[in-house]
Amino acid sequence: MTASQVAYKSLITIAQQTRSAALSLAVLSTKQRNQAIDTIALALESARDEIIKANIADCEAAVADGIAKPLYKRLQLDEHKLRDAITGVRDVGKLADPIGHVQIHRELDTGLILKRVTCPLGVLGIIFEARPEAAIQIVSLAIKSGNGVILKCGKEAVRSCEAIVKAIKQGLAQTAVNPDAVQLLTTREETLELLKLDKYVDLIIPRGSNSFVRFVQENTRIPVLGHADGVCHLYIDKAADIDKAITIAVDAKTHYPAACNAIETMLVHAEMAPTFLPKVAKALENMNVELRGDERTREILPNITAPTDWQTEYSDLILAIKIVDSLEEAIEHINNYGSKHTDAIITEDPNAASTFLALVNAAGVYHNCSTRFADGFRYGFGAEVGISTQQMPPRGPVGLEGLVTYKYQMTGNGHIAANYTGASAKPFTHRDLNKTLGNG
Amino acid sequence: MTASQVAYKSLITIAQQTRSAALSLAVLSTKQRNQAIDTIALALESARDEIIKANIADCEAAVADGIAKPLYKRLQLDEHKLRDAITGVRDVGKLADPIGHVQIHRELDTGLILKRVTCPLGVLGIIFEARPEAAIQIVSLAIKSGNGVILKCGKEAVRSCEAIVKAIKQGLAQTAVNPDAVQLLTTREETLELLKLDKYVDLIIPRGSNSFVRFVQENTRIPVLGHADGVCHLYIDKAADIDKAITIAVDAKTHYPAACNAIETMLVHAEMAPTFLPKVAKALENMNVELRGDERTREILPNITAPTDWQTEYSDLILAIKIVDSLEEAIEHINNYGSKHTDAIITEDPNAASTFLALVNAAGVYHNCSTRFADGFRYGFGAEVGISTQQMPPRGPVGLEGLVTYKYQMTGNGHIAANYTGASAKPFTHRDLNKTLGNG
Repeated sequence: MTASQVAYKSLITIAQQTRSAALSLAVLSTKQRNQAIDTIALALESARDEIIKANIADCEAAVADGIAKPLYKRLQLDEHKLRDAITGVRDVGKLADPIGHVQIHRELDTGLILKRVTCPLGVLGIIFEARPEAAIQIVSLAIKSGNGVILKCGKEAVRSCEAIVKAIKQGLAQTAVNPDAVQLLTTREETLELLKLDKYVDLIIPRGSNSFVRFVQENTRIPVLGHADGVCHLYIDKAADIDKAITIAVDAKTHYPAACNAIETMLVHAEMAPTFLPKVAKALENMNVELRGDERTREILPNITAPTDWQTEYSDLILAIKIVDSLEEAIEHINNYGSKHTDAIITEDPNAASTFLALVNAAGVYHNCSTRFADGFRYGFGAEVGISTQQMPPRGPVGLEGLVTYKYQMTGNGHIAANYTGASAKPFTHRDLNKTLGNG
Repeated sequence: MTASQVAYKSLITIAQQTRSAALSLAVLSTKQRNQAIDTIALALESARDEIIKANIADCEAAVADGIAKPLYKRLQLDEHKLRDAITGVRDVGKLADPIGHVQIHRELDTGLILKRVTCPLGVLGIIFEARPEAAIQIVSLAIKSGNGVILKCGKEAVRSCEAIVKAIKQGLAQTAVNPDAVQLLTTREETLELLKLDKYVDLIIPRGSNSFVRFVQENTRIPVLGHADGVCHLYIDKAADIDKAITIAVDAKTHYPAACNAIETMLVHAEMAPTFLPKVAKALENMNVELRGDERTREILPNITAPTDWQTEYSDLILAIKIVDSLEEAIEHINNYGSKHTDAIITEDPNAASTFLALVNAAGVYHNCSTRFADGFRYGFGAEVGISTQQMPPRGPVGLEGLVTYKYQMTGNGHIAANYTGASAKPFTHRDLNKTLGNG
């Protein structure tokens, strides 16, 4: 066997252990899982000095390696950040239990009862880059939702994550949760092998740069919860309120330009452009935003350059501007160049708003508010597992709901299908036994 | 350009037309979509002679090509089958509208309102083999759910499907639905190209043999709704009622052996085997079922052979039998060799039943009833789009629900995120405005 084959084999063993531990975890009560989460919080508090020491070692090694400053800031886990992360663990404990929900409860015939019940997915594979406290958050979400979790951290954060996972496992050893439910991988080779384990891992959540997420999406058959791009748009309709438009443009671009829900492109209706563009340009340039515009925009704002394309996520204080002649053109532009993340219209015309909300194909479609609200906590989910830009659910900001699936449980008393087919077929009653979402 | 590149290019044009037509379809009212469905039914009735004539031509050509008998039966579309298919179209019209459901309706702050609303996926790609009436059913489901649809039929059914789609498009031309929303592809090359169109097609539904479905799953990045295998199990617990066990075993194996929800393997608790196996063998052999058993089974039933493996879907009157020493061993066998479709336990012990239902990882887990109930119509969904054996929702039999997604619509009045962060952050109200499933 090659070294890679050996690594793959041992990774399969780890995955099997995780799966087996997850199976026991899946049937624990809400109380048992919440107790485990509280115990994790205590264990992390007890290991505080060790974790911070490990993080200092990581940071020193990273500096010696010439780490980039933003990455260094993400790697750093001081007492304050650690305390916040532990508070976050306790908050997860307080969330409503996502498993065991009866979504459908239906009598098919006397004594033949169908239930659709939410249950854990099984094993989560979480691949993250520098931020060590991500391990803390994701483990608490996994235990809460009854899932095993295989963590793979970036090489910069190995010492920190090892200290964190050691504390978590020590905590779990005192609870009903088998510590094998939480595993940590640390080498790059293991990332590639993990992506192949579609028999053992049910969901991959990548946390890192766009190119990293795209790499994961393109190299696994396991479902991936995440998004590579956040190319969000703000469309200023001809019936826009200019003050709202300016305030929202500034917020959506400058409040946190590196966030995926910041805007990259502003589309402006031609009738609005001559009055609106000079004002918004001033407001944005006051916030150090570099503007880039198409030819018609540059006729109004002659000092700006042209964008190279309409699909770049700048993740920086740069905004591309295009003038459009109609709402329809704006919608078409967004559906062509957007990333289905979050797009907003500014208008006082309710018909324009409802057309935009109906026809823009994105996880989030907003009217007269900033795209920056696209966030699981802001939506009131209590946690955010990721933001998905895929077409199928789960879509948009995903809470704990994204970590569960469902199964159909049916109980009969000797019922067979033959009695319900043919000339003398018994009819089904299909009587809902409690309120559900229904199906179809 | 090579011929394949030319074909791909023209397929992209077709896909773009479908997408554009689907966008208009997505915003039609329930009434408009239902009217379109009724008009399709009328158009199919008017074209009845033409469709049946085309089908006769298909059948004659297939016979000349030496088509296998079961495939011939599937290809054949007589007046009776066509009438049933048209009745099916009208039934789809009567189903509840799956789009426009408000799943979440929440005030985030005064005047900032979030809604999660179901909406069409966009464009469906349906690849089916011989059965021409599949085209009729799937088009009505697509229109009902507001989706465009690109159909690809097997080469045997080309004339029939062309006649069907021609009638459907003639019908749609009299309605609010653009006939471009329904497209038919007929060549094998187009199947391969269709699977590459992840920018234009949102969901692939393959209908055909297991190997065909597996081929589709392995050759596309578009989500696939379907299942390659249906390796279903029946476990006869030590506390089983023998009469129920025999009745259910016979139904689950013989009622329709080619169905994916028929059982392939029966696991029998060792304590039950000596009394149960001779009786069930007699009942099954009376129905011409060929039994195959592991060594211990063959000690009790010496005249049967050994199965070659535990993961074959026989789709025939063949049943593999294995003796297990415990409920746990049965669960482990199912989780190892099953296809996560539907598995059942026969027992009078409620604890054994609940352990089985909790720990078997399958879309359907049944107690004291036949696996043959795993079906969208039997579940009361009114339609079945497919049965999924994946881990993530939608899972199991999928109704119209599987053809829709959701988007988050937010409406504000100039709301910006900056006001909800930092030292003087406004709190969110997170007040649910009507009953919803909640999230997370």
